[in-house]
Amino acid sequence: MKILILLLATLFLSACDDNKQPAKVQQSTQTYTLTLAESWPSNFPVFGDATKNFKQLAESMSNGRLKIQIDSKNKHKSAFGIFDFVKSGQYDLGHSGSYYWKGKDINTLFFTTMPFGMTTSEQRAWFEYGGGQELMDKVYAKHGMKSIIGGSTGNQMGGWFQKEINSIEDLQGLKMRIPGFAGEIMAEVGAKPINIPAGELYTALDRGTIDALEWVGPSLDLRMGFHKIASYYYTGWHEPGAELQFLINLQKYNTLPKDLQKILVSAMKLSAYQMYTHSEHESAKNWASMKKDYPNIKVRTFPKPVFEALKKANDTLLKELAEKNALAKEIIESQTSYLKKIRAWTAISDQAYLNSQSE
Amino acid sequence: MKILILLLATLFLSACDDNKQPAKVQQSTQTYTLTLAESWPSNFPVFGDATKNFKQLAESMSNGRLKIQIDSKNKHKSAFGIFDFVKSGQYDLGHSGSYYWKGKDINTLFFTTMPFGMTTSEQRAWFEYGGGQELMDKVYAKHGMKSIIGGSTGNQMGGWFQKEINSIEDLQGLKMRIPGFAGEIMAEVGAKPINIPAGELYTALDRGTIDALEWVGPSLDLRMGFHKIASYYYTGWHEPGAELQFLINLQKYNTLPKDLQKILVSAMKLSAYQMYTHSEHESAKNWASMKKDYPNIKVRTFPKPVFEALKKANDTLLKELAEKNALAKEIIESQTSYLKKIRAWTAISDQAYLNSQSE
Repeated sequence: MKILILLLATLFLSACDDNKQPAKVQQSTQTYTLTLAESWPSNFPVFGDATKNFKQLAESMSNGRLKIQIDSKNKHKSAFGIFDFVKSGQYDLGHSGSYYWKGKDINTLFFTTMPFGMTTSEQRAWFEYGGGQELMDKVYAKHGMKSIIGGSTGNQMGGWFQKEINSIEDLQGLKMRIPGFAGEIMAEVGAKPINIPAGELYTALDRGTIDALEWVGPSLDLRMGFHKIASYYYTGWHEPGAELQFLINLQKYNTLPKDLQKILVSAMKLSAYQMYTHSEHESAKNWASMKKDYPNIKVRTFPKPVFEALKKANDTLLKELAEKNALAKEIIESQTSYLKKIRAWTAISDQAYLNSQSE
Repeated sequence: MKILILLLATLFLSACDDNKQPAKVQQSTQTYTLTLAESWPSNFPVFGDATKNFKQLAESMSNGRLKIQIDSKNKHKSAFGIFDFVKSGQYDLGHSGSYYWKGKDINTLFFTTMPFGMTTSEQRAWFEYGGGQELMDKVYAKHGMKSIIGGSTGNQMGGWFQKEINSIEDLQGLKMRIPGFAGEIMAEVGAKPINIPAGELYTALDRGTIDALEWVGPSLDLRMGFHKIASYYYTGWHEPGAELQFLINLQKYNTLPKDLQKILVSAMKLSAYQMYTHSEHESAKNWASMKKDYPNIKVRTFPKPVFEALKKANDTLLKELAEKNALAKEIIESQTSYLKKIRAWTAISDQAYLNSQSE
């Protein structure tokens, strides 16, 4: 009997001695299922690929201790419900755009992209090294959430227009689908921003219900087919580096072991960085395809006086925003001064290089 | 005695029943120490921060099951020994630049940056979605290694010059520190590339031993002090998106559990992406500081005819490279066609936006 006890004890020790050898670590084996609600329909290109990439990264790095269950809009039925879903804990995580929540908290407006603002790489420098994340944390902590960069579309195109815009007068009364803050700027200079559901945009542009619309850029515009019916493709100004967001319910986050917290946030950041890379690839590929099939697409940029008017309207609206609350003022000032500093560098690096190499 | 056995058996089962509950996973607790040799001296800014960031990410995500031990050049004494260190297994990992190894395998030349080539975001699209990683895998698999993107410096400046370059004649006999492939191009057009150790560069430029030099850009140039003694800062053409590399010994890699492999590679990629963001931030900050203290720095761009001559030399050298082996030809063709496609997109997105917003 002594031998049996000894045998069992040895077995016990040899199977469970993880803490006794210096080459092993204590390791929780508990699994955690986190639900994620995204604003996009099922299998939405680029944006939806980013959440799938995040899921794959988080699950494989955690050896299955994290399970991510993604519900698309088809399931939860509310593209613009993500903020409330995650705040209330109905979902643990979200993937959406911060500027959708300006009606709930005006300070969420600043963390996607701002008209005449930073490009993707400039804004990421602001987020990660220029105080942007800390300001975003301040805004979202009030709602019991954390927001992490969620992937950039890159520089969004100014949109598809049926007529050329040669002066600010050409914008008077122009019926254009352009939502959000950029829509407010357009309204300031006399255009008529109209909100139309995505599924009806093609017909609206084709039948002249609207004169122009902005969507994203070639990465997502190709499948919408606007290039088949519009004459002009305008370069961007209103969303120079649209960065999506991941949302995390902080109460849920705090229940995770430290290593899973780190895996969760790192998987979000890596999939965000990779989404921009993916988006640039898709835009390059789709723009080549559009030009091949429709060689008459005319690319145009608004003339200087049009930009000056739009910028004046932008400055007026920003001034109003800065007066709303002290944190809004702090964010606007941080973005304005950072943009000034980093654009001076962009001007002598990428911009100078690209210009020196163009025809 | 029966009770004691039962007790021991229960204890055994309760302590080791990780496989019996569906909410738990099997989890190795083995730790792995991986050694990393980097080309840089201890505490080298930006580049060295990237390896520290990688270490922190890998160790925290793995809950300490991965330990990364970084040796800088001060320790291993061989900045250009990284390829051999990792190939031989003397070190498990490396952090360096692929183009340093062209003397060992000419095809490693293509995976850092190429003169007149892609910018950082363009090249990352090529690496991750345009077939670049697969080509890099082909090259490094021959040496029993895997190479992963290691962080970009962004667009490198063309360098510090004492005299303005107005024509190709001004490059004749110009003594310039410009190593590697770009140095070969400069030699083709009549300049005299000279290799000088980093520690002697300032004195060499100050005393006129050399007429010009290129280093990186404001992120790393500031501490070198060249702006105090040179008149002109030329914009870049020869390293439009210099991406460092992580090297992995494949034999070692294959001994790691799948989840640690995924953590290792993801930590490398995230720290690579973040290094570019960091570098852009440092360049913006340091460029502001240089301009403040030395407002007379004159930024210049080579005139078109100079670029045409340099490009012609570049084309000649690329043609020679393509004739060396079939894989070199395949890589050059892949990069050339990808650049053409993605630059057409950059032209109507970031470039058009930046130009429309500059004075």
